[in-house]
Amino acid sequence: MKLVRFGAAGAEKPGIIDADGKIRDLSGVVPDLAGAVLGRESLARLRAIDPASLPLAPEGSRFGPCVGRVGNFVAVGLNYADHAAESGMAVPSEPVLFNKAPSCIVGPDDTVLIPRGSEKTDWEVELAVVIGERASYVSEADALNYVAGYCICNDVSERAFQTERGGQWTKGKGCPTFGPIGPWLVTTDEVDTSDLAMTLSVNGERVQDGSSSTMVFKVPFLVHYISQFMILEPGDIITTGTPPGVGMGMKPPRYLKPGDTMEVAIAGLGVQRQNVAAS
Amino acid sequence: MKLVRFGAAGAEKPGIIDADGKIRDLSGVVPDLAGAVLGRESLARLRAIDPASLPLAPEGSRFGPCVGRVGNFVAVGLNYADHAAESGMAVPSEPVLFNKAPSCIVGPDDTVLIPRGSEKTDWEVELAVVIGERASYVSEADALNYVAGYCICNDVSERAFQTERGGQWTKGKGCPTFGPIGPWLVTTDEVDTSDLAMTLSVNGERVQDGSSSTMVFKVPFLVHYISQFMILEPGDIITTGTPPGVGMGMKPPRYLKPGDTMEVAIAGLGVQRQNVAAS
Repeated sequence: MKLVRFGAAGAEKPGIIDADGKIRDLSGVVPDLAGAVLGRESLARLRAIDPASLPLAPEGSRFGPCVGRVGNFVAVGLNYADHAAESGMAVPSEPVLFNKAPSCIVGPDDTVLIPRGSEKTDWEVELAVVIGERASYVSEADALNYVAGYCICNDVSERAFQTERGGQWTKGKGCPTFGPIGPWLVTTDEVDTSDLAMTLSVNGERVQDGSSSTMVFKVPFLVHYISQFMILEPGDIITTGTPPGVGMGMKPPRYLKPGDTMEVAIAGLGVQRQNVAAS
Repeated sequence: MKLVRFGAAGAEKPGIIDADGKIRDLSGVVPDLAGAVLGRESLARLRAIDPASLPLAPEGSRFGPCVGRVGNFVAVGLNYADHAAESGMAVPSEPVLFNKAPSCIVGPDDTVLIPRGSEKTDWEVELAVVIGERASYVSEADALNYVAGYCICNDVSERAFQTERGGQWTKGKGCPTFGPIGPWLVTTDEVDTSDLAMTLSVNGERVQDGSSSTMVFKVPFLVHYISQFMILEPGDIITTGTPPGVGMGMKPPRYLKPGDTMEVAIAGLGVQRQNVAAS
């Protein structure tokens, strides 16, 4: 299933993509795509519905973030060997974790804002994992049973805030609009994460062109690993790191400016298109 | 006002402390102490109610976390000069920020669990700020208008997970039960944060004995500062750092073990009492 949230920001309704690629309205079935609605049994109930039996969403509806009420937005750093190299950092011996503020989450095609005082706003196409079941101390073998599905995340990052303002990375990762997710939450049964093409273009120029095949730590290990340190709840998101091609790694470095456009794609998970504007 | 959440874990009801120190049930007035209920206008409506007109909560009710559905649990590191010294770190030139997983939040008297594989679980009495209004790019002068109130937070920390497992501090800060908050959310009108006595005892022995007067960065500056990097939402919590006396700073270091007890107090904000157990 391809699940979506559609409508005005803050008032999104749940939906599902039908055989013709159109959005069908799920709001008569579930209140939102959030929390327990993302659990195994709930998804099985949704799977049993014929999308054609549901009302069509209004033509041209905005895509909202494909998950509502995200409680914890966990991110994995330096999880592609080539990206670690371009960042001038070593491949870590175990996953590097940090947090994005859930308040940075926006829809896949919403405007990305350059924060006030920023000169180094950068892009990162990433495969994001959506948690479906409460996960604490789960084994790697069992880990995928706790995952509802996958979506694209543009892990927008302000490099000076991230690394030049003291301490931890969190300052450069959760600025307003720094977390476009969607358009679709694609359930695990429809995604093989072993070799997904991942691309990001700025103003039509391809800058990232990678594959999930070069991830250092894979999804089952990441879910297992993170669950040793914190409880993952339904609706939590883990964004799993970016392949090479970020602006920081270019010579000279290149950063986003108002008027730029980004197109972010992962095979099978859809496409995001963002305009960039000043705050 | 002293606001509380009482009852079984996961099914807490909102309440208010009356003139006799007893809990009165607010569940007929508001659904929970969470989100928009913590805003200025909502708190003004609660203030207009005579607690004596509300039903008493059952005698001996458990205190839950005093805020529900916390979306972002932000923490400030090394915010007391003496604590930075005992940690062997410099006082930062601007606040160090990190995140605690919201899933670590528990009631003030709930059991604190030592994570699996942990040998360095430590304590930290902290003054926590509860956000009442959405705050983005707010000035220091205006910052307290966005604060609902204050509570105690024991910023329980696993030192090896925090600093010996690669990268960022988040691994050692959000383990299950690492965020006791409460017992009371005390509204800003009743708290002067300039010189609050802050203490923590382990097995009856006073180990932390400080005051909020030695905070490096004060509450208005912190709210202003954090709001430059992320949107703060109603119900978000900022825990503002700990005074000296943590186990890591002792010679030799001393850490929690199953069977230990902690008593955590801040003047005017109540007392927490936790038993420590294995996971």
